[in-house]
Amino acid sequence: MTSSRLASAVYGSRLRSAAEAAKKAGLDGLLITPGPDLQYLLGSRAQSFERLTCLVVPADSPASVVLPRLELAALAPSAAAELGLAVHDWVDRVDPYALVASLLGTPASTGISDAMPALHALPLAAACQAPQVLATPVLRELRMCKDPAELDALRRAGAAIDRVHARMGEWLRPGRTEAEVGTDIGAAIVAEGHTESAFIIVGSGPHGADPHHEVSERMLERGDVVVVDIGGPVEPGYFSDCTRTYSLGAPAAQVAAQYAVLQRAQRAGLRAVRPGARAEEVDAACRQMLAAEGLAEAFVHRTGHGIGLSVHEEPYIVAGNDLLLTEGMAFSVEPGIYFPGSWGARIEDIVLVTADGCEPVNTRPHELTVLPD
Amino acid sequence: MTSSRLASAVYGSRLRSAAEAAKKAGLDGLLITPGPDLQYLLGSRAQSFERLTCLVVPADSPASVVLPRLELAALAPSAAAELGLAVHDWVDRVDPYALVASLLGTPASTGISDAMPALHALPLAAACQAPQVLATPVLRELRMCKDPAELDALRRAGAAIDRVHARMGEWLRPGRTEAEVGTDIGAAIVAEGHTESAFIIVGSGPHGADPHHEVSERMLERGDVVVVDIGGPVEPGYFSDCTRTYSLGAPAAQVAAQYAVLQRAQRAGLRAVRPGARAEEVDAACRQMLAAEGLAEAFVHRTGHGIGLSVHEEPYIVAGNDLLLTEGMAFSVEPGIYFPGSWGARIEDIVLVTADGCEPVNTRPHELTVLPD
Repeated sequence: MTSSRLASAVYGSRLRSAAEAAKKAGLDGLLITPGPDLQYLLGSRAQSFERLTCLVVPADSPASVVLPRLELAALAPSAAAELGLAVHDWVDRVDPYALVASLLGTPASTGISDAMPALHALPLAAACQAPQVLATPVLRELRMCKDPAELDALRRAGAAIDRVHARMGEWLRPGRTEAEVGTDIGAAIVAEGHTESAFIIVGSGPHGADPHHEVSERMLERGDVVVVDIGGPVEPGYFSDCTRTYSLGAPAAQVAAQYAVLQRAQRAGLRAVRPGARAEEVDAACRQMLAAEGLAEAFVHRTGHGIGLSVHEEPYIVAGNDLLLTEGMAFSVEPGIYFPGSWGARIEDIVLVTADGCEPVNTRPHELTVLPD
Repeated sequence: MTSSRLASAVYGSRLRSAAEAAKKAGLDGLLITPGPDLQYLLGSRAQSFERLTCLVVPADSPASVVLPRLELAALAPSAAAELGLAVHDWVDRVDPYALVASLLGTPASTGISDAMPALHALPLAAACQAPQVLATPVLRELRMCKDPAELDALRRAGAAIDRVHARMGEWLRPGRTEAEVGTDIGAAIVAEGHTESAFIIVGSGPHGADPHHEVSERMLERGDVVVVDIGGPVEPGYFSDCTRTYSLGAPAAQVAAQYAVLQRAQRAGLRAVRPGARAEEVDAACRQMLAAEGLAEAFVHRTGHGIGLSVHEEPYIVAGNDLLLTEGMAFSVEPGIYFPGSWGARIEDIVLVTADGCEPVNTRPHELTVLPD
């Protein structure tokens, strides 16, 4: 279960499901260029270049792959050969868009992967002479509900990033810069079992008030509250993403009080997760708890995002999303409070929706962890 | 000249030129999402996420930026503030596509950056209710012809990667794996002045016959011919890209003879570069030299690609491209010969088109460099 892809039969089943879902959605086929959708459907980590690589999934006939002859080797680690997919390789001066169109006959409409760059999407629309829609509504039904192997990968990812958070006291000390701490964390993310470090936020003091801060040359100070939001992929490509907040020395009384509200809000979010609940209800659960204590304005982002082969994917846990949660979905519950110029805090767990609630894959303490100053 | 962007006035001028070029092309505006086009026009290295960030360049009115409130900090290092661009930030539940459309009035057509993901391109097309074309034909006229600061950056990039090639004897030795050598090269790419290592090909023995091989666990052997194709960006974001081929011990007579033909072909390519020549003529110059010695079939890819803020960009040096070369263009001249299952070789320089020819930024010897075995 730590190889770079799953068994070929899994991808065969996903391809059949994708074709069926496309047909049900009234699409004549799906066109999938490199990215998480291609990784999901074929186990391929091919990259997107100026030369077209495209998995063609007709609603009513077998899937095939169009790719530059130069990239044939990049297809080898995928399930394409074992599944017996036809591979149409092309060389410079051949029109790959016409080639794709010919594989779809005369489609009335196609679904394209959301990662497809305009560089390929516009010529494909012209070649197919058919309207394009996003394949996401079709594929999200598949990708959102994780199978056992995917759930296992997300659990392993969660355990790996928890081990990094457990070591935070080694690195977070007054006098060190956020960037220095970030370098140590990056090495630990790999050492603890990720294939790479994908993102590292060390938001100390006022930087904690910017939810998308990364790292800077700011030196940590006594009394700083520090937001640490980190993650990366584990084989076969599933991401971890976990935030904990630390205090260098005992926090001020007001910080401790406001953090306690945040902790209750995050717990309320977790409690709201169960099959049949709507995504927006989880967001509302966090938001109401904060609003009740006058912190509504301090929570400036949505509550969460789905996770899997992408760090951010469906379902989004946001006001206005009435999607019904179902068993096997995986997403973050990560309310935060932000006080520009002063400090910020966030608590984030990845949770898996179970038959009657949820299973967090992150289990580090949720309290404001006080480290020596 | 080693800051992360150029002077704001440069971007102001580029934005005006882009608007004029859009108007001339009959477009009502350009929509530019994160990627090299955004870096070129605004000095911004913002990343593309599921929430829309978009530079709007109307043909007839000032440019402005639409981005999520959470990403406001990511805009700070760009020229947006110094140029006084209007910034329209948005929060969850606002429709950013309608916001962009409102900034363009009722456009008859828009040009979109080739890196824009379908996730944003399709909703923008719907919101603008106007046909989309690629912005590339408009922007390439600007991006292809480098200004003095850009040429300087490409020269610095070339010198930096040459310093890495100069050290290849430290790492390429029988008994070491391609991956081990690649790790050393990656560290040296950074040590010699790049901000990161972008790509590393160490194609030893039969792996040299795959032009897009990266690295593997194959152990280098005595007598191996090894293709080393490496590069990365230097501030403010311009790439190096240089290939040299090495031999671990004296090469066989046939290898030496065929390599000599490749070297002549690469020189013929360099000689064909001058203002007024067509891109395809440079390709033909290399190809004819190889064909004359019976090696036409061994050269399986185009001769080169433009380079700048992207590793691969216009102009492409390929059969069928009748684009006239002009002073200030920058691209690779990189013929190769490949013998599947046996060996391969490639010689690649980046050249700048001058008033009467070209200036290669890479100056390491072009011979098959024999290293001790």
